[in-house]
Amino acid sequence: MTTQQLVSEIRKKKSFLCIGLDVDLDKIPAHLLQEEDPIFAFNKAIIDATHHLCVAYKPNTAFYEAYGIKGWKSLEKTINYLNEKYPEIFTIADAKRGDIGNTSTMYAKAFFEDLAFDSVTVAPYMGKDSVEPFLAFKDKHTILLALTSNQGAFDFQTKTVDGKELYKQVIETSKSWENSQNLMYVVGATKAEYLADIRKIIPESFLLVPGVGAQGGNLEEVCKYGMTDTVGLLINSSRGVIYTSNGTNFAEAAATKAEELQQQMETILK
Amino acid sequence: MTTQQLVSEIRKKKSFLCIGLDVDLDKIPAHLLQEEDPIFAFNKAIIDATHHLCVAYKPNTAFYEAYGIKGWKSLEKTINYLNEKYPEIFTIADAKRGDIGNTSTMYAKAFFEDLAFDSVTVAPYMGKDSVEPFLAFKDKHTILLALTSNQGAFDFQTKTVDGKELYKQVIETSKSWENSQNLMYVVGATKAEYLADIRKIIPESFLLVPGVGAQGGNLEEVCKYGMTDTVGLLINSSRGVIYTSNGTNFAEAAATKAEELQQQMETILK
Repeated sequence: MTTQQLVSEIRKKKSFLCIGLDVDLDKIPAHLLQEEDPIFAFNKAIIDATHHLCVAYKPNTAFYEAYGIKGWKSLEKTINYLNEKYPEIFTIADAKRGDIGNTSTMYAKAFFEDLAFDSVTVAPYMGKDSVEPFLAFKDKHTILLALTSNQGAFDFQTKTVDGKELYKQVIETSKSWENSQNLMYVVGATKAEYLADIRKIIPESFLLVPGVGAQGGNLEEVCKYGMTDTVGLLINSSRGVIYTSNGTNFAEAAATKAEELQQQMETILK
Repeated sequence: MTTQQLVSEIRKKKSFLCIGLDVDLDKIPAHLLQEEDPIFAFNKAIIDATHHLCVAYKPNTAFYEAYGIKGWKSLEKTINYLNEKYPEIFTIADAKRGDIGNTSTMYAKAFFEDLAFDSVTVAPYMGKDSVEPFLAFKDKHTILLALTSNQGAFDFQTKTVDGKELYKQVIETSKSWENSQNLMYVVGATKAEYLADIRKIIPESFLLVPGVGAQGGNLEEVCKYGMTDTVGLLINSSRGVIYTSNGTNFAEAAATKAEELQQQMETILK
């Protein structure tokens, strides 16, 4: 999917919501556990109920890998279902991968070809030659971890490197990489006040913003400092949407919560 | 596996060789492609031929994920085969994972429980709360990326942060994390001269050292600067061992190459 297509979906749906599909068997409604594939059954119901309210879905691969091969099957079914039924939706494999050159190419193939995601999250620690193999895929997007929403972000990311915080150094440096037009960045909503500075370095790039809701980030703040002429934001909510209820009405409850967020976004977009 | 058990294996085998199982279907002998599971068939043959010459195997998960569910099955078969047939071998999931707290726990479960690896490689960019969930597993080891063997290591890892290179900051900081006794570190052989400084910070910890052979790292150099009283080194070779021949004799050829490395290690250990 191209960035233009994503922007036009945002305009059409008046939403820049991304729903995180972090499915934990301990948290999903008990009645689903009788299904042959409870994780996919959960995802399918959530997707069918919310697809008109959001522009992206983001399964975090950890939640699938934890269930081994069964988990990978659920992930594969989920991405295939999305691509077949809702091809207008932007899909993000939240995998936080990154390895040396030829190995990163294998990861890129895993997420862009074997599982046909539109994008994948990638960690920057290993530098240019660990990220460029992902950037080489046309109309696929590499979402680089810049400033994450967790407390541990202060351990290294905000430390000063050559007169500039590491996360800024990462963003700045990444702009010189080949096919950098395929880059987006993860910036946590819990650090909204940093967004103004980030926009000075990347005025146009899309940001994937986790941490609104459960982690305490504020939507208005994020938009105030991070929004661009072409929106430039994907706001992710995972637990805050998908675990609204754990009764048989879980999908409608998730839709109600997603609509609440979409309505807030519609107001902001006006 | 405890560190003591690993050290005693090293003493017994007079080897601190780790063999990287980075299996690429384009590189393995053509006759294996007729097997039901060519990747596992390749690994099994390599393992059976080399297990007495090395103390660890390290499949890089990228090479398995690239083949989707089939690849994960091959990975599962490989780790199960190792645990059943050669439980004395230290196993490393080279996965370079890392995510926020509860999500890192899911990754830890994936590699320490679902696939029963002894250790997993983890990226440090997201800080303490992304790594500690891995450290909580008893007799399991978390191998933190410190200074990697690729060119991109110079993009951020060697940059100066608060008066100290980032990779040193990562090592130093990680020592204060809970259960830090379960930490090992990745330090590339291509940067052997950095090892003396690293040993000042972590005089005892095990280092996983990729980059000997194909990437140009030198074994003697690495040992000169990195070896401790309890050895403290796992030297990894992947392509340099497993792709020595792509004829029907590939496993014996790999064993010959592994024995060459083991012999060099035996000489150094004297």
